[in-house]
Amino acid sequence: MTESQWTGVWVPALTPFNDDLSVNQEAFVRHCLWLLEQGADGLAVFGTTSEAASLSIAERKTLLEALVAGGIAPERLMPGVGCTALPDTVALCRHALEQGCRAVLMLPPFYYKGVSDEGLRAAYSWVLEHAASDDLRVFLYHIPPVAQVPLSASLVAALREAYPRRIVGLKDSGGDWDHTRLLLERFPEMAIFAGSERFLLNTLRHGGAGCITASGNVNPGGIRVVYERWRGDDGARSDAAQARVTALRDVLEGFPMIPALKALCAWHYGAGLWCNVRPPLMPLTEPERAQLRQKTDDFGFSMSDNRESMLEQ
Amino acid sequence: MTESQWTGVWVPALTPFNDDLSVNQEAFVRHCLWLLEQGADGLAVFGTTSEAASLSIAERKTLLEALVAGGIAPERLMPGVGCTALPDTVALCRHALEQGCRAVLMLPPFYYKGVSDEGLRAAYSWVLEHAASDDLRVFLYHIPPVAQVPLSASLVAALREAYPRRIVGLKDSGGDWDHTRLLLERFPEMAIFAGSERFLLNTLRHGGAGCITASGNVNPGGIRVVYERWRGDDGARSDAAQARVTALRDVLEGFPMIPALKALCAWHYGAGLWCNVRPPLMPLTEPERAQLRQKTDDFGFSMSDNRESMLEQ
Repeated sequence: MTESQWTGVWVPALTPFNDDLSVNQEAFVRHCLWLLEQGADGLAVFGTTSEAASLSIAERKTLLEALVAGGIAPERLMPGVGCTALPDTVALCRHALEQGCRAVLMLPPFYYKGVSDEGLRAAYSWVLEHAASDDLRVFLYHIPPVAQVPLSASLVAALREAYPRRIVGLKDSGGDWDHTRLLLERFPEMAIFAGSERFLLNTLRHGGAGCITASGNVNPGGIRVVYERWRGDDGARSDAAQARVTALRDVLEGFPMIPALKALCAWHYGAGLWCNVRPPLMPLTEPERAQLRQKTDDFGFSMSDNRESMLEQ
Repeated sequence: MTESQWTGVWVPALTPFNDDLSVNQEAFVRHCLWLLEQGADGLAVFGTTSEAASLSIAERKTLLEALVAGGIAPERLMPGVGCTALPDTVALCRHALEQGCRAVLMLPPFYYKGVSDEGLRAAYSWVLEHAASDDLRVFLYHIPPVAQVPLSASLVAALREAYPRRIVGLKDSGGDWDHTRLLLERFPEMAIFAGSERFLLNTLRHGGAGCITASGNVNPGGIRVVYERWRGDDGARSDAAQARVTALRDVLEGFPMIPALKALCAWHYGAGLWCNVRPPLMPLTEPERAQLRQKTDDFGFSMSDNRESMLEQ
């Protein structure tokens, strides 16, 4: 894992919507600043958790500009750029570069299913040739449960061979540790992020970069503690911190993830608009919200928990 | 089946690309004019076969404008408009209306999988409320093998109940005649199109509207013959025509469909650019092209076949 600026806990920041489902830019910037204050190493904005596919290209550009204007260093941003239409992906890469970003997270084109490795390689190559700059590093985004278009290990190898300086990492959101471990073993020089904090400590111990995880939106400090203890070579306490974030993840996974994270943000920020999601997602129902509240209270979790105190635990 | 302007053979027109993968607008207009001359009842431009998901919103708008400027009556166009981002879907609906179109074909938002009927209903409702006009009729697009987001019969019923004047039809590209028949029985007042000419005659005999089919790009006349004979109440010769188009479909399905149709267009128009597809699709390989040529020759198929002579057969 050579690209040391891309390590630790990155968060696919949630995108808040007003009641009319327009984007609430102010709440978005505020949340992103909060995540970084809480210890997030960077923000993988416009990921699956961000409802990026539900945003127009113009909305994504405006939001990225707002973050930079809001004082967030662009090198701490890794915007998602992968669209079904490659001209859109190219446009988002160029825009990210213009805004000073150094890396992007790139879904394969995800409309057609059962496409060949050769076709996916052609897609990534076309984008890289048209958004060509060594300044922009690409993280491949493997998320078969949602995109339904997996990136095979041999495709990753072919792309690495073709673009060794530009394709520097991968996010594995397959949810399968065996697959992540296989990638870590086969591509030791890549910055591999687990797609869930559930696999964070294992990923780090196998030479991985860290995690890019949905629940980082509500528990960035707790997840960062795992990373810090691992870096501090504190084996037993790393395991304890990992056990705690895994247990919280178990609680969260009892609910539809994005609406649940937004409900937690609504309580944290005291702003009901945070519950809004764009269809086809739906907000939690009232009973679900009550149950989420109960379960997170029982767990002793609050987004306001102080990271310093977590480090002491 | 009450909306009689939407019947017969509609074609999801292929989108030609130059060697640099930019859209070739001139070849597109020419192809669309040819399809109508050959007897296509209408064009479902920007469908799956059109590689619409591989086109930017701006490209789709430009192409639709080119068709209207090229002399195609907008009421013979049913542009595909369904995107993952609902603001894009709304923008395409409004643009279609501005261009004089009376109907659109609408995919559900297709990034998230396993979404609820309630979420899909909210998505369609949001689009209908924001692109609101009784002048624009909506055909639902059910294509689970590709979108991986099916539209259940109960969702269709709920949408029909909410928007009885606006949601007037459905294209069933599930590839399962039993499902199409179920829809035809349950929604006799809707204009139901089969997604393949394989099911055309059965669809018509069960009260359906016709078909919207990929291979209509190369065999519009032959498929139209099935429709004409059925309309002429010519039972035995309808079956014979159906058997012939089904047999040709069997030949075509031995190849990746979109690249194969484009290879046939390349021969027909004498223009190699027609072989180009946008990644992640790939053009046919040379051996595949040779095999396609052989098999279509053996079948006795040519895009230049005269429809009048087919009617005589």
